Amino acid sequence: MKREDVTDLILFRRVKLGVKWTDVAKKVGESKEWVTAACMGQMQMTKKQAEAVGKLFDLPEDAVLLLQTVPYKGSLPTAVPTDPLIYRWYEIVSVYGTTIKELIHEEFGDGIMSAIDFSMDIERQPDPKGDRVKVVLSGKFLPYRTY
Amino acid sequence: MKREDVTDLILFRRVKLGVKWTDVAKKVGESKEWVTAACMGQMQMTKKQAEAVGKLFDLPEDAVLLLQTVPYKGSLPTAVPTDPLIYRWYEIVSVYGTTIKELIHEEFGDGIMSAIDFSMDIERQPDPKGDRVKVVLSGKFLPYRTY
Amino acid sequence: MKREDVTDLILFRRVKLGVKWTDVAKKVGESKEWVTAACMGQMQMTKKQAEAVGKLFDLPEDAVLLLQTVPYKGSLPTAVPTDPLIYRWYEIVSVYGTTIKELIHEEFGDGIMSAIDFSMDIERQPDPKGDRVKVVLSGKFLPYRTY
Amino acid sequence: MKREDVTDLILFRRVKLGVKWTDVAKKVGESKEWVTAACMGQMQMTKKQAEAVGKLFDLPEDAVLLLQTVPYKGSLPTAVPTDPLIYRWYEIVSVYGTTIKELIHEEFGDGIMSAIDFSMDIERQPDPKGDRVKVVLSGKFLPYRTY
Amino acid sequence: MKREDVTDLILFRRVKLGVKWTDVAKKVGESKEWVTAACMGQMQMTKKQAEAVGKLFDLPEDAVLLLQTVPYKGSLPTAVPTDPLIYRWYEIVSVYGTTIKELIHEEFGDGIMSAIDFSMDIERQPDPKGDRVKVVLSGKFLPYRTY
Amino acid sequence: MKREDVTDLILFRRVKLGVKWTDVAKKVGESKEWVTAACMGQMQMTKKQAEAVGKLFDLPEDAVLLLQTVPYKGSLPTAVPTDPLIYRWYEIVSVYGTTIKELIHEEFGDGIMSAIDFSMDIERQPDPKGDRVKVVLSGKFLPYRTY
Amino acid sequence: MKREDVTDLILFRRVKLGVKWTDVAKKVGESKEWVTAACMGQMQMTKKQAEAVGKLFDLPEDAVLLLQTVPYKGSLPTAVPTDPLIYRWYEIVSVYGTTIKELIHEEFGDGIMSAIDFSMDIERQPDPKGDRVKVVLSGKFLPYRTY
Amino acid sequence: MKREDVTDLILFRRVKLGVKWTDVAKKVGESKEWVTAACMGQMQMTKKQAEAVGKLFDLPEDAVLLLQTVPYKGSLPTAVPTDPLIYRWYEIVSVYGTTIKELIHEEFGDGIMSAIDFSMDIERQPDPKGDRVKVVLSGKFLPYRTY
Amino acid sequence: MKREDVTDLILFRRVKLGVKWTDVAKKVGESKEWVTAACMGQMQMTKKQAEAVGKLFDLPEDAVLLLQTVPYKGSLPTAVPTDPLIYRWYEIVSVYGTTIKELIHEEFGDGIMSAIDFSMDIERQPDPKGDRVKVVLSGKFLPYRTY
Amino acid sequence: MKREDVTDLILFRRVKLGVKWTDVAKKVGESKEWVTAACMGQMQMTKKQAEAVGKLFDLPEDAVLLLQTVPYKGSLPTAVPTDPLIYRWYEIVSVYGTTIKELIHEEFGDGIMSAIDFSMDIERQPDPKGDRVKVVLSGKFLPYRTY
Repeated sequence: MKREDVTDLILFRRVKLGVKWTDVAKKVGESKEWVTAACMGQMQMTKKQAEAVGKLFDLPEDAVLLLQTVPYKGSLPTAVPTDPLIYRWYEIVSVYGTTIKELIHEEFGDGIMSAIDFSMDIERQPDPKGDRVKVVLSGKFLPYRTY
Repeated sequence: MKREDVTDLILFRRVKLGVKWTDVAKKVGESKEWVTAACMGQMQMTKKQAEAVGKLFDLPEDAVLLLQTVPYKGSLPTAVPTDPLIYRWYEIVSVYGTTIKELIHEEFGDGIMSAIDFSMDIERQPDPKGDRVKVVLSGKFLPYRTY
Repeated sequence: MKREDVTDLILFRRVKLGVKWTDVAKKVGESKEWVTAACMGQMQMTKKQAEAVGKLFDLPEDAVLLLQTVPYKGSLPTAVPTDPLIYRWYEIVSVYGTTIKELIHEEFGDGIMSAIDFSMDIERQPDPKGDRVKVVLSGKFLPYRTY
Repeated sequence: MKREDVTDLILFRRVKLGVKWTDVAKKVGESKEWVTAACMGQMQMTKKQAEAVGKLFDLPEDAVLLLQTVPYKGSLPTAVPTDPLIYRWYEIVSVYGTTIKELIHEEFGDGIMSAIDFSMDIERQPDPKGDRVKVVLSGKFLPYRTY
Repeated sequence: MKREDVTDLILFRRVKLGVKWTDVAKKVGESKEWVTAACMGQMQMTKKQAEAVGKLFDLPEDAVLLLQTVPYKGSLPTAVPTDPLIYRWYEIVSVYGTTIKELIHEEFGDGIMSAIDFSMDIERQPDPKGDRVKVVLSGKFLPYRTY
Repeated sequence: MKREDVTDLILFRRVKLGVKWTDVAKKVGESKEWVTAACMGQMQMTKKQAEAVGKLFDLPEDAVLLLQTVPYKGSLPTAVPTDPLIYRWYEIVSVYGTTIKELIHEEFGDGIMSAIDFSMDIERQPDPKGDRVKVVLSGKFLPYRTY
Repeated sequence: MKREDVTDLILFRRVKLGVKWTDVAKKVGESKEWVTAACMGQMQMTKKQAEAVGKLFDLPEDAVLLLQTVPYKGSLPTAVPTDPLIYRWYEIVSVYGTTIKELIHEEFGDGIMSAIDFSMDIERQPDPKGDRVKVVLSGKFLPYRTY
Repeated sequence: MKREDVTDLILFRRVKLGVKWTDVAKKVGESKEWVTAACMGQMQMTKKQAEAVGKLFDLPEDAVLLLQTVPYKGSLPTAVPTDPLIYRWYEIVSVYGTTIKELIHEEFGDGIMSAIDFSMDIERQPDPKGDRVKVVLSGKFLPYRTY
Repeated sequence: MKREDVTDLILFRRVKLGVKWTDVAKKVGESKEWVTAACMGQMQMTKKQAEAVGKLFDLPEDAVLLLQTVPYKGSLPTAVPTDPLIYRWYEIVSVYGTTIKELIHEEFGDGIMSAIDFSMDIERQPDPKGDRVKVVLSGKFLPYRTY
Repeated sequence: MKREDVTDLILFRRVKLGVKWTDVAKKVGESKEWVTAACMGQMQMTKKQAEAVGKLFDLPEDAVLLLQTVPYKGSLPTAVPTDPLIYRWYEIVSVYGTTIKELIHEEFGDGIMSAIDFSMDIERQPDPKGDRVKVVLSGKFLPYRTY
């Protein structure tokens, strides 16, 4: 059994049981974004978190163990994603990439926005012209060191 | 003269003049995110916007004209960006891609978050442990049609 | 069981039973284009649609469940398709890509033709010099927002 | 001077003169789709067509000559297009590729829809919920020969 | 069972039985080139052809059924083939590609040589300096339409 | 001046002068296929051949010299060609690749059809249903050595 | 069973039995280079050779049969090899490629060194500063034909 | 002026002057393989070597200086070479890669054949059936360290 | 059983047993860096080392045998790694690549830092601002030979 | 003038003047690693640093200005580097990638070694068996946040 098998198992059981990610998140006690990512094989769970997930989805003991290891990250099958929802995010990076770079450097100087000390919040933004997806990304600014 | 030459010209003159993107934005009268993207060759300007930019950077008439055309979008030289700041965004899409997909579908059903009817806001989030980059993305949810 | 397994099962049973896609479409109550795409693992079915398909092809219960999930879209094994029929469509995008861009922008301004709020109709166009394939694509125009 | 230089020249002069593609088409006497594609370096013009274009844009004699040669076709800089408008078409091929294949084969048997004996018509489809881009593609069906 | 499995089965049984492709062709009643391609999963067989192949190789009923479906074409595992015999053909396209283009356009004008309304004949050409492979390709010329 | 510049020069002068490749071939005294390939920068000319070409197109002395060097071969800008005429040849290799391999091996045993000791002949094949392009390829069979 | 399975079987049995490639070569009666390549799935064996290998490794009858077929050649999983030993050879081609081209053309004129009528000999070259790998490659020169 | 410009200059002057690489090698006092590689921009020359080359080809002073810098190595424009002569070498690595690996490891244990402490000798091998290219490669064996 | 299966087995058993790599290293008697690499399928073990690992993880006899073979090296599934920890190393090569080249050449002349006669030491570097990862790489300098 | 032009200018002037990177570093007052990277277009200089470099290499004013902008980072022309010295580093990442991941996670838990809050030191390590390149990398450990 490998970590990917655990992801497949969780995905199938979730559909089978009709459980929502927000419910999984509540059981684990962290945000829906982090918990979903962890279940998708992108984050390492603590023993307690893994056991909560294991109980919810009736996972075998080995699966619970694997949830506590650090996975090989990257969730997409191709460098340029084919799924339209995910592609739109790739497109934002492609179209706005140099813009984001210019504006962060203007505000903070040379450095990056961390994808590690990072959090994300996805929510519905009601709008009479059609509801919107509002996503808040927050990443620590890390300046390049001169040495 | 091509649109890319206009981008190069603006980039160089901006450094030369020491003008900030936020100042360019004020002259144009739109957000700093949209205006920077437009200057980087990713958005089409109106005549008025183009003339404001042309005046600020003392651009030749042809350049002002080209700013009013629709550019061939995509600002990165490679499919996987090499620049660390931009790569972190690509990494977020790679690591969180399937998570974002799961959560938007859970909330909205099948469809996408638009990258066209879209806006972005980048700002400094003061934090005692190190300031953070806070980015708010807002895209209209577009449901797949059944027909 | 994964969504791709359901696609394989449907494809094989369809050949076995000698059922036409137009017949599947009638059972589901939507266009042949949408229903085929849904069976090929590109669209999410409602419970009722999935059950109709499940009944027609005698699918196991898990398969019917999976038809109601949102699939990871993209139906081709390579970025440039090798199958001649599908390649011709890729070729149309390659040869006419910039032309389509020019003409849509000329008529509508900057923006895109939606591939989400979209429908397609494929039919035979009788012609004495050899029948033709007539395809009508209809996608909502989505203008870029200035913000 | 090469054919690509002629394309660049036409593109720039068109913006400069404020001429619409539909006007170019009228001068040439063919559809706006074919004429635009020809100007974009994807089709070969006759002497008469080339001279009409040459006169409209005041092209040098060599350019008029080059418009009468057969170009090396393919209008996109990358295999997967980065421009959002053109990408949506690539996405349609990616998402609906196997669907289109199934339906054309169901109707016609094994073969392809020609991209050579082909025409395209792009027009505005008024819609109270937002106007749509309607595209009609017509390609001769070419059956595979058994020999 | 999928179409590729049928190809594998035929390939193995052919070696096992020591049957030649020319013999398979005789049983099917078409050229060795077309019949081999069909067995390799590149062409659709009629019921009669499939049954002849099924009988010769003692294929299961499902396999005979699958031979009558239209396959997803493209027989190579990589875009640039690694097998030396096949690579030499790729090399001919690479080295002579622009030459072939020039000469066909000179003789016929703009258009293509069809790979659909196409036939191939491979035979031994005796030669005192070493026998040669002689291949005759015949494809209908298809002119680009002006519309 | 590089060899590619000589190719560009020949291509432009040929259009300018309205000379046919078959005429160039006559001046050089070899087949139209070989001569065109040589002019396209894929073959090395002798002094006499180069001078004939130089005279015809009024090339500078350096160009005539460069025609006598061995070029870096490969005439296509991308691994998978975008030009439809050339792509059809790539498609033949893709669809028929394993078939060609099987049939040559069946006739000759393990080895290849040479792309070096090779000749090609392209001609019009009149046909009431539409003229065809007939291409005869002849390559020496080279058996793999056991050692 | 496929040819790759035979390779895997031979590789595992060889380790298990502790047999050296030079010993395999002696049993087969050809050079260690050719015999190893044949066992690795790159060359076609005669019945006698295949039986010798089959006996040595106690292969099933089907495997012995498959050793007598012509394999699809190319032994590497990626276009640019990751294994350091094999990469060094790729590096030699990359660094010395144009040099090899210049020197062979200078000595022989336009043409290639055959990789088919080819042999290789790998041996230890004792050296006080550290033993060296000496490899002798011998390929027939094949001149390009003018026709 | 960059190092690549020096390579271009040498290549052109060599053709112009009709100098052979073996003559260049004699002037420099090293093997024709090393000297050609150095001229092709793959090796660093000493002051004396650079001046010899500079004198022979009448290079400007800056070029002589650049010949003494360490170049960015790699002489091919694509990862898989298109030139047939160079491709045959790539093919040898592809077909014989795993064989070479097996045999060197059998003789020497784990490690590599150095491409740095390396020499190559290319010569004509007369043969009544057609002369051959004989290449001797000699690279120091470097064992992996256990630490 | 293949070498990759042994790696999977070790990885799973290690998690199951809760053994640390530093403990594995002690049992084997080499550094943690080398031993982990060997377990990950990148180094060849001696009989004694393999048996120590086999005992620790209760591996089957065949696995112990395979640990003593030379593996096909390269531990990453894609050319550009997607895992953030490993990507940072790729990024260091990308950003600092030319810098490293300049400085090693300045100090040592033309040549390379060996990745074969190489060792690595990874340790925690306590730091009040946040502990650091300190990595010491040591590779023999290998000068290019002139010959 | 663009940032890449400044890099080219510095590289050429450095050779011309015979200045060592260690001398440039002294003038700038930072480590040779950082200063070289900054000159190679990978780091942003302060006004003072840029002026020191500008004075040393007699750069035009615009170049001094550009040295103070944040560059688009990534110094290599291809994703897999062809230069042997730089490739060895890529190889270390490829061979040891999963090992480095295992050991850092074992010591620190899930997270990365920063390539931003990072320093590198390259020095000669005298060794009787041949001097070695010793490189010390130090990057802050950044733990993944749970949120």
